[in-house]
Amino acid sequence: MLENTLHFEIAKSEQISAYARRMSDEIGDIGYYALPDIGKHESLERIKNKYKTKQNVVLIGVGGSSLGAKAISNMLGLEIIFIDNLDESVIKGALAKISLENSVFIISSKSGTTIETISIYKVLLAHFKPKDFSSFIFITDEGSPLENYAKSVGGELFFIPKNVGGRFSVLSNCGLVPLALAGADIKAILEGAKAMKERFLEQNDPLILQKAHHYATHPNAKINVLFSYDSRLKAFNEWYIQLWAESLGKRRGYKRMGLTPVGLVGSADQHSFLQLIMDGPKDKSVTFLKVAAKNEITVPDIKLEFLNSCDFANNLSVSFIQNSQSTATLQALKSENISVDEITLSRLDEWHAGALIYYYELLTSACGVMLGVNTYDQPGVELGKMLLKKMLSTQ
Amino acid sequence: MLENTLHFEIAKSEQISAYARRMSDEIGDIGYYALPDIGKHESLERIKNKYKTKQNVVLIGVGGSSLGAKAISNMLGLEIIFIDNLDESVIKGALAKISLENSVFIISSKSGTTIETISIYKVLLAHFKPKDFSSFIFITDEGSPLENYAKSVGGELFFIPKNVGGRFSVLSNCGLVPLALAGADIKAILEGAKAMKERFLEQNDPLILQKAHHYATHPNAKINVLFSYDSRLKAFNEWYIQLWAESLGKRRGYKRMGLTPVGLVGSADQHSFLQLIMDGPKDKSVTFLKVAAKNEITVPDIKLEFLNSCDFANNLSVSFIQNSQSTATLQALKSENISVDEITLSRLDEWHAGALIYYYELLTSACGVMLGVNTYDQPGVELGKMLLKKMLSTQ
Repeated sequence: MLENTLHFEIAKSEQISAYARRMSDEIGDIGYYALPDIGKHESLERIKNKYKTKQNVVLIGVGGSSLGAKAISNMLGLEIIFIDNLDESVIKGALAKISLENSVFIISSKSGTTIETISIYKVLLAHFKPKDFSSFIFITDEGSPLENYAKSVGGELFFIPKNVGGRFSVLSNCGLVPLALAGADIKAILEGAKAMKERFLEQNDPLILQKAHHYATHPNAKINVLFSYDSRLKAFNEWYIQLWAESLGKRRGYKRMGLTPVGLVGSADQHSFLQLIMDGPKDKSVTFLKVAAKNEITVPDIKLEFLNSCDFANNLSVSFIQNSQSTATLQALKSENISVDEITLSRLDEWHAGALIYYYELLTSACGVMLGVNTYDQPGVELGKMLLKKMLSTQ
Repeated sequence: MLENTLHFEIAKSEQISAYARRMSDEIGDIGYYALPDIGKHESLERIKNKYKTKQNVVLIGVGGSSLGAKAISNMLGLEIIFIDNLDESVIKGALAKISLENSVFIISSKSGTTIETISIYKVLLAHFKPKDFSSFIFITDEGSPLENYAKSVGGELFFIPKNVGGRFSVLSNCGLVPLALAGADIKAILEGAKAMKERFLEQNDPLILQKAHHYATHPNAKINVLFSYDSRLKAFNEWYIQLWAESLGKRRGYKRMGLTPVGLVGSADQHSFLQLIMDGPKDKSVTFLKVAAKNEITVPDIKLEFLNSCDFANNLSVSFIQNSQSTATLQALKSENISVDEITLSRLDEWHAGALIYYYELLTSACGVMLGVNTYDQPGVELGKMLLKKMLSTQ
């Protein structure tokens, strides 16, 4: 179960119905909507079996090629080694942990020519000098240069559907291949996503449109804080930041549109960013995201001399205290009339991972429709890439 | 060397001179200014020696009690185990790595009664059942309940000066004790900080005031992005976020003041947040923070069939490419007239860690003076704490 309670005024149905139609219009063209329905994944079973003796799953990919798999593996406590930045300490750290023999390598790039990914791949080739490519899996768009390369060397090859953008691709092979190899139950992930699809697109629960309408129209909700009260959601925050920033930060004609994402982890970040939300400019909405209490660790009933003012937490589970901190902070912000809402997941498992991902993808699409932007492109990052190429080509 | 180039219009000296005086006025009252001068640290040498056989340094502390030590240990590649959130997976993850015998435990809380820290400490006591407190170090304010407790059990005790706030405390015992135990050269950290003190407070280099003036007055610089092009600066970003948000997000009378921090790591986050900066609302300044190229890993001169469009990176070092990405992105943003500046560190070592920390502390104080807020309190987090205590006490 994913429950979501909005603590702000909600839009009337006539305000959102036109947007619901515009969103439905996208469904045929925009590939991610259909991902929960895409049937059996026999090829995932096959590679799981093929690589079952490999100890490490190593994913080489940046941005949309790694953030989704990282979000879900973090939620589920699965081990994937990410080389997700063209950065010496990241590469050295990964190389120290792996050998060619005990690893399966996934080279993931939608365009097939992401400079970071291909450069890291070359470093690995020089380092490991593989005799063949039996331990290499390539994930890319059909028709990309990386497809042709993969075929020429004989590595495993998986496709991302062309009409699925990188940041919306975690429920495609892009996320599912590494997650399956790391041991996730792919079927349950997709079932969770499908449940959200049914709820919001088929049964037309208006909640996501109401929430998006608030964000797209309310002057006090320009910065959208996701306050996750479970450190297993830290990588999900990063995934959300990419999804939100890159989808919604767009020009509409001459106008600059967009909503700014912030990711926090509770309760730790109550000791960091919270002061700014409470007393700073009123431009921030806050979504409290929590997982129903696990109750695996309890604060023991120890009374320490001089520290009795802390005894009120004794005999309570750590996760119960953490969730209570979420509730208390929500109430404090609500008393300041700050836009807050609360999402509660019953558990952190595959089903809920899929549900949460799909919920946020739909919310992003809904905001995009309401802001009147193209949610699915990213024209603003091209200039920097061009300048880099020019700069380095003259070296 | 820490070099900083501002790519925006700078204030005239008469616009900032009054603020320089107001900042000088703070120096006697606000303790962090003096931390680089505080002489010899014999007690740090003593405990380094006392605990030299311990394999793990375990720091229990949240917010200002951990973020500074985490920032510097991340920069230097030092190993400290942080239990910095009251969160079951964080606690379980740490417990799986440590034993009582091979660890020294630091319990760090300025007030001495931080509910997360004391609760985690109780979990550790129940888990390890220590016979004595010879492996426990307590760091707190003089006169706090935790001081009294530490004395009653006979643990090592270190003080944070009363007039040094938690988020400004990394150059006090709060940061120095864990860093010394983890092997950092404390003297060099303080020398780096002292060099910035001399440059900006004694020789009156106006750069920090100019930069702060821009942030405090320019409508396009309400969100301040720190874009660090080295993953060893990731925890520094987190430290910056706390420092900035909690210091500057304040009420001034009825008015809500504040600047919103965002931390990014390059080049990875060029594939995430950059689109929003380029094309979204023009309310973001960006500081590019980079480390002069290390050149430890080079992209080999491998030409892969079909992928020759990526060959322009061949024969270049990974860190050179990363820094070039920083430069290219800076230029792209500059062409959009977005407020950018660039900080370059010659190396990531103790001296530069201290310099960078102190530079940012001074910048925060300067912004606080210009915004007319109390930079050093955090009244907004109290209501949530009160609500929590009320909520849990009735359990």
